[in-house]
Amino acid sequence: MEFKFANRMAQLKASEIREILKVTERPEVISFAGGLPAPELFPIKEIMAVNKIVLEENGTKALQYTTTEGFAPLREWIAQRMNKGLGTGFEADEILLTHGSQQALDLSGKVFLNEGDVVLCESPTYLAAISAFKAYSCEFIEVPTDDEGMIPEELEKILENTKNVKLIYTIPDFQNPTGRTWSLERRELVVKAAMKHEVIIIEDNPYGELRFEGDAMPSLKSFDEIGCVICLGTFSKIFCPGYRIGWVAGDKGIISKYVLVKQGADLQCNTIAQMEIAKYLELYSIDDHISKIRSVYKIRRDLAVKIMEDEFPETVTFTRPKGGLFAWVELPPNINARDVLEKSLKKNVAFVPGGSFFPNGGRENTLRLNFSNMPEDRIVEGLKRLAGVLREFIS
Amino acid sequence: MEFKFANRMAQLKASEIREILKVTERPEVISFAGGLPAPELFPIKEIMAVNKIVLEENGTKALQYTTTEGFAPLREWIAQRMNKGLGTGFEADEILLTHGSQQALDLSGKVFLNEGDVVLCESPTYLAAISAFKAYSCEFIEVPTDDEGMIPEELEKILENTKNVKLIYTIPDFQNPTGRTWSLERRELVVKAAMKHEVIIIEDNPYGELRFEGDAMPSLKSFDEIGCVICLGTFSKIFCPGYRIGWVAGDKGIISKYVLVKQGADLQCNTIAQMEIAKYLELYSIDDHISKIRSVYKIRRDLAVKIMEDEFPETVTFTRPKGGLFAWVELPPNINARDVLEKSLKKNVAFVPGGSFFPNGGRENTLRLNFSNMPEDRIVEGLKRLAGVLREFIS
Repeated sequence: MEFKFANRMAQLKASEIREILKVTERPEVISFAGGLPAPELFPIKEIMAVNKIVLEENGTKALQYTTTEGFAPLREWIAQRMNKGLGTGFEADEILLTHGSQQALDLSGKVFLNEGDVVLCESPTYLAAISAFKAYSCEFIEVPTDDEGMIPEELEKILENTKNVKLIYTIPDFQNPTGRTWSLERRELVVKAAMKHEVIIIEDNPYGELRFEGDAMPSLKSFDEIGCVICLGTFSKIFCPGYRIGWVAGDKGIISKYVLVKQGADLQCNTIAQMEIAKYLELYSIDDHISKIRSVYKIRRDLAVKIMEDEFPETVTFTRPKGGLFAWVELPPNINARDVLEKSLKKNVAFVPGGSFFPNGGRENTLRLNFSNMPEDRIVEGLKRLAGVLREFIS
Repeated sequence: MEFKFANRMAQLKASEIREILKVTERPEVISFAGGLPAPELFPIKEIMAVNKIVLEENGTKALQYTTTEGFAPLREWIAQRMNKGLGTGFEADEILLTHGSQQALDLSGKVFLNEGDVVLCESPTYLAAISAFKAYSCEFIEVPTDDEGMIPEELEKILENTKNVKLIYTIPDFQNPTGRTWSLERRELVVKAAMKHEVIIIEDNPYGELRFEGDAMPSLKSFDEIGCVICLGTFSKIFCPGYRIGWVAGDKGIISKYVLVKQGADLQCNTIAQMEIAKYLELYSIDDHISKIRSVYKIRRDLAVKIMEDEFPETVTFTRPKGGLFAWVELPPNINARDVLEKSLKKNVAFVPGGSFFPNGGRENTLRLNFSNMPEDRIVEGLKRLAGVLREFIS
């Protein structure tokens, strides 16, 4: 029979990253394509210990159904952590645990988006957020950005002239894909514009704790006076992504709607994962763990930037991220990163072409490099090979 | 600010079960309301053992991101299990792991339903399937059912006379909420009707392995000649619900669409949960474990039926399920089960009024009883108290 899918399916395509990742599973490939944390830093022994404790103390609870909202002590910890680090004022019941922050993106679409509604985002923006929102048949308008983040005057112009803007999607800290961090002024001005027009901002912050230098910035939420900013967070980058535990934090009237759609979407998060993370946070220092991650990633970032400075052709520009997992490369306008990828795969080096990070297409002369996931010698070797390929295109 | 939610949010309300469950958390309440497996049967020691093995052998993989499709050995096991027990012919790559079978329901809505499309279902049907599909703004038509299942002539009439029927949602084995099991003839005739009209059937089968008596029935899928039946399954009732691991199985052309929407919805299931379940299945006998569950639930079913027979007023009818977790009670038409609940809660006995299991409302004289989740003495005491309340209404 011929299957009749929903109209929305025509707009969805497989994530280019996930497709490239399949190709790059061969061990000889040096892949800058993924967004994977360094697995050698996972606290495996500690996780074995907390698994044992949770199951011994509370096994029947840990393996049973639980509430949609999530494990109360973990929600409490998240609220306190955010309030301390991000200048927010959340209570535990303003936090909903989600199946990774990807689910929080999907639920955001479900709670807010009608067909034809408009989502504003940075240009470029996170690929999987585009996929999540596209499933609700929205339109995207890309707000021009520079090294300091979204440009408030441009945002204001769009808000003045566009109907049905429902969400402004942002990643102010060590953005995916560019690695850029918004300046203090931009944070304040963007939130002011959203408050003036009463539009919801999604502040996605998976990388904020992974800062290598400089002082932490206040969150967008800390400037919010009307409840328009919703915060997303995750344990994927500071603990382990395999657990799939993230969260959404916001006004109670909003979070109650997220709870409702999560009930229908998957009832609840994995119970034992929630309890193991809570037990880990009780028994160990996550700050010590995050310090370790930061220092390893900093070395890798330093090295990646140095090789790019030394080896990339002069007409190639790139970001020097102050934290996070990614750097962003711009090639001369006439060079297509997909062509570069084809050649570099022949030398067993992979990355993600940047075009997919622009929801309305274009800008094929860009690419994203991940520097968190491999030992230093492979970073050097891989970037040198990539530099060689780039020189073939730019000579 | 006033929040502008998507139109779909107006149709969604909190699950009555989850709300009742919150009320019934006090230990003195004897609750027949949930659909919870018996926690004393969870294989806690075995799970501690497999956690240790998985983390020792393969910790960095178990805590890292993995593919959207899921852990290959687990998909392979599921395909073989279904083919052996249900007369299907699935290959591993026709299985997608989902975050519980609830997520498979949500993804089904996303893959197939446009606003205004029609979902056919048994009358009554599973409450949380109604919520999952409603989020895609569909309409429901309830197909009349009797003790043998959906009535094919009625289904045929509806299919002849209705445009935009996209899905037929069914639970042929030990249905939730009624506990009923479809006869062989009904299975064949319903699939024939679906094939004739080229409409997708969702065959939801969370309880099929929990049969207390009689022979297993072939699945609807085993009659499918055109790829129109999609099967849902879960480890929640045969292993542990806290893991949130279920699956959807179907034609490759359909499963590839589910993979696409799962990527946007939450990237993937919990990695370590998938690997622990696979390791458990490798090292232990799930058949022995399921036998244990079956024999405990059978005792509870027998007891519940006996008390209902002995104590309930004669004008109250109820099902005698051959498996699963639930029995269904019908009161005289003038009695509202919500009123009964109010009085029985005063005697610390809870259940779920049946009205919410009818997507288009009505039939408030029904209720659902769960018999899997409590020790025998509490079943006796609880049902005796409930019988007392019923006698107050019917005297």
